[in-house]
Amino acid sequence: MARERRAGGRRSKAARGSDTIPQLPLKPLSNPHAPVELLNEEQIQALHDTSMRILSELGIRVMGERVLGIFERAGAIVDRETSTVRIDEDMVMEAVATAPERFTLTPRNPEKRLEIGGNALCFGLVAGPPYVHDRINGRRSGNLKDYENFIRLAQHFNAIHLIGNQVTAPQELPANNRHLDTYLANLTLSDLSFHCTAIGRGRAMDGIEMMAIARGLSLDQIAEDPGVITIISINSPRLFDEEMGEGLIAMVEHGQPVTITPFTLMGAMAPVTLPAALAQQNAEALFGVVLAQLVKPGAPVMYGAFTSNVDMRSGAPTFGTPENTKANMIAGQLARRYGLPYRTSNANTSNAVDLQAAYETGMATWGAVMGGGNMIYHAAGWLEGGLTASYEKLILDVEILQNIIEFVQPVEFGEEELGFEAIKAVDTGGHFFGTDHTMARYETAFYQPMLSDWTNYENWEIAGATEAVDRATNLWQQALKEYEEPPLDAAKREALEAYVARRKEQIGDGSP
Amino acid sequence: MARERRAGGRRSKAARGSDTIPQLPLKPLSNPHAPVELLNEEQIQALHDTSMRILSELGIRVMGERVLGIFERAGAIVDRETSTVRIDEDMVMEAVATAPERFTLTPRNPEKRLEIGGNALCFGLVAGPPYVHDRINGRRSGNLKDYENFIRLAQHFNAIHLIGNQVTAPQELPANNRHLDTYLANLTLSDLSFHCTAIGRGRAMDGIEMMAIARGLSLDQIAEDPGVITIISINSPRLFDEEMGEGLIAMVEHGQPVTITPFTLMGAMAPVTLPAALAQQNAEALFGVVLAQLVKPGAPVMYGAFTSNVDMRSGAPTFGTPENTKANMIAGQLARRYGLPYRTSNANTSNAVDLQAAYETGMATWGAVMGGGNMIYHAAGWLEGGLTASYEKLILDVEILQNIIEFVQPVEFGEEELGFEAIKAVDTGGHFFGTDHTMARYETAFYQPMLSDWTNYENWEIAGATEAVDRATNLWQQALKEYEEPPLDAAKREALEAYVARRKEQIGDGSP
Repeated sequence: MARERRAGGRRSKAARGSDTIPQLPLKPLSNPHAPVELLNEEQIQALHDTSMRILSELGIRVMGERVLGIFERAGAIVDRETSTVRIDEDMVMEAVATAPERFTLTPRNPEKRLEIGGNALCFGLVAGPPYVHDRINGRRSGNLKDYENFIRLAQHFNAIHLIGNQVTAPQELPANNRHLDTYLANLTLSDLSFHCTAIGRGRAMDGIEMMAIARGLSLDQIAEDPGVITIISINSPRLFDEEMGEGLIAMVEHGQPVTITPFTLMGAMAPVTLPAALAQQNAEALFGVVLAQLVKPGAPVMYGAFTSNVDMRSGAPTFGTPENTKANMIAGQLARRYGLPYRTSNANTSNAVDLQAAYETGMATWGAVMGGGNMIYHAAGWLEGGLTASYEKLILDVEILQNIIEFVQPVEFGEEELGFEAIKAVDTGGHFFGTDHTMARYETAFYQPMLSDWTNYENWEIAGATEAVDRATNLWQQALKEYEEPPLDAAKREALEAYVARRKEQIGDGSP
Repeated sequence: MARERRAGGRRSKAARGSDTIPQLPLKPLSNPHAPVELLNEEQIQALHDTSMRILSELGIRVMGERVLGIFERAGAIVDRETSTVRIDEDMVMEAVATAPERFTLTPRNPEKRLEIGGNALCFGLVAGPPYVHDRINGRRSGNLKDYENFIRLAQHFNAIHLIGNQVTAPQELPANNRHLDTYLANLTLSDLSFHCTAIGRGRAMDGIEMMAIARGLSLDQIAEDPGVITIISINSPRLFDEEMGEGLIAMVEHGQPVTITPFTLMGAMAPVTLPAALAQQNAEALFGVVLAQLVKPGAPVMYGAFTSNVDMRSGAPTFGTPENTKANMIAGQLARRYGLPYRTSNANTSNAVDLQAAYETGMATWGAVMGGGNMIYHAAGWLEGGLTASYEKLILDVEILQNIIEFVQPVEFGEEELGFEAIKAVDTGGHFFGTDHTMARYETAFYQPMLSDWTNYENWEIAGATEAVDRATNLWQQALKEYEEPPLDAAKREALEAYVARRKEQIGDGSP
């Protein structure tokens, strides 16, 4: 019986004390369900063919000599005047053939090593918002104190497996070196893997070096057993920026995986029709995959999808829509066609942690999971279409993720769970409360939520009729109190701090 | 392109005026996605075998001579002392073979005829709550005024296809004849099919007769083209009540479909383990299917599932849980094994229309839809574990259902939607706003929500920072204003009213 896993292995944090927040134990996830296939083979082929036409006839405009040179040497058609690179299907398929179907990501705590690809499933913390919000202190610019709190929450909740690229930008710190402070927070306040900021070579290298220090590895060693990852965005439509190219090359040269994610909002940076937007996304993602394989054949690379629509009245991006859900599922079909691990998201559009935030996130989460996503990014804390990292939203999301984690546990059973004798033992019209079969299992039989309140109406009212969003406000505060900093060897901590100090001096007023 | 359907056929109600609530057009739904299969064949066989043991070794206790007699004449083993009926696998499989795989339900508006079975999908209004709630007037006992309002909302929103058994009980009216007032409201304020209350023969017959009057049919004619349906509950574990038997027989004899739904809460009315609860549910549901086929071979009958868990600390029923989701999916596998149309639900546990209500409903809705449900009951308005019919929850649910309705629209496309020329026409790093390809499609390209607010944070704040639940309060009031009573021939209305008056007199202080 699947339930029994709760009793064995690593105990959930709830086991430490009776009043602590209940949560599921730390455990690698795998999704046993066949992904939803929205398109038939012929339709997928049509998307593929259109992508190949985009790459071979229209090409991608590439900023930066180094990437142009790599493609040129590989035999691509490079138009120097327009900086346009055109590649053919053979080059794409060769690259796809050398890219691995799965890879691992090992943080300083090897128990939290992530498998990425196949049926493996992991969830990442929200990344990128310039603002932060909670219902006590309101909305404010991103800052290091909040940054650190979010890292603590990611560390505390087992449903969050990975720290994304800056949960919020600490805007009080200098833009050219704040990545160092965020990496240091990631590595001291958590023992998870994280995303480097790969805007240029310097920021990527700092992430790799600091993860290597935290794990006591050399750069050569971490190249064999990667610990950080990044997202390479395409400046859709069809523009590949120099800084992204430099970031990609640094990561790949040092054996760290990259995700290629075009930002293809239908009606804005991509055509208004879903097939066209996906054909464009596919072309742009594959272009990055090819680059990674040209830099180093066999480099771990992930297929990224971020296709959604815009509100055609305001032009604002929208997420958690039916179109977004379909896009995430079809992108999964494409990723599997190429045998690439698949990154997607479960974002929402709402401005508040309200019904809309919950149902949009639910829609997007099912789309991502049933679309076969391996890494579901922005899975905890995303609000306002990504402009705000929200404390209450993080709590809501962890509850949603835990529901999904329970859902992907396989149903296994034997005679005892089939329960014929248990049924025989209860009279017709009777009940199963207190029977031996029930008593032996009731404590671990069902998922125990942290945010849901399952008391009946009268008791709920007597207790203050607290709605879920208020419970979420209590829960993130409690989680921060319960949080325990993961132990870190003093010498490593010193080395990390010294690295940060040295690099800040090196960088000075320049670029990292 | 799937989008084009919006432009053709019946226009959405939104088209009537620019300030009306946007909604999807009335349209039969079919779910093109392969259902999630949680159990393998061997596991499904184990559930089936356990169910057969329950039916043949333990049996079902049957109240009421008529049903006992039917089983006895069919060759079942009937123990008169304990009123227990035992049936074997052959009898079950014969019944399953004569039950149709699909059937139709025709209301007085033939445009709203429902296909039930196969890939067809429909959503029903919440049924059964003793209380009503909205955020202006608070919580109150069910009453006819609110009953009527909910029927108006069900009529107004195209996402609601069917009226369940009493959206709320009008408690100010006599219990022995209030079903007549609710049927009259169903038939005058809406033109949808509805569920009869099949507690005994009289209430079922009243529903059939009144639907026949509204459609201008005789009882013989409506028997050939059914218009009402009911749910036959099993008093789990393994008890079949007399009133339910009488209701079932009346419906089946008159050609109206029945749904057999055991109420198998794990840990309470069923064992604490999912496989055992499902084996029990399966045995109980099949028992009702057999009875229907014995009454009339070929009778339309639906496999009903309502397995969820209880909160083991309070004993309260819980819905929208991972266990509930899994149960609904596995029950779908069982229904398909027997070739029976499948009724399930997307309920939740929350006491308020809050985050919990939204994420539990989202979880349950995906479980029901991806579990292959044909009729998803309680799909609009369910709150407090079914104790309250909620106005705001209905609005939330319609938004969730519309997202799902969009999700099940097949993705179809040609060259234009693949958009190579559209992509070619936009510069690298440019945008697609205002291009011909976009302008030709932007008005109908994407789903337009009614509850979601997609304006950016600044505009949302300037406009009052209204959260979704407050928008829902506005929307149900607006919907009641926009509601239009469907035309009904004056003679039919008179005949219905006369029927109600006559039956009230007949019933007097007695039972219907």
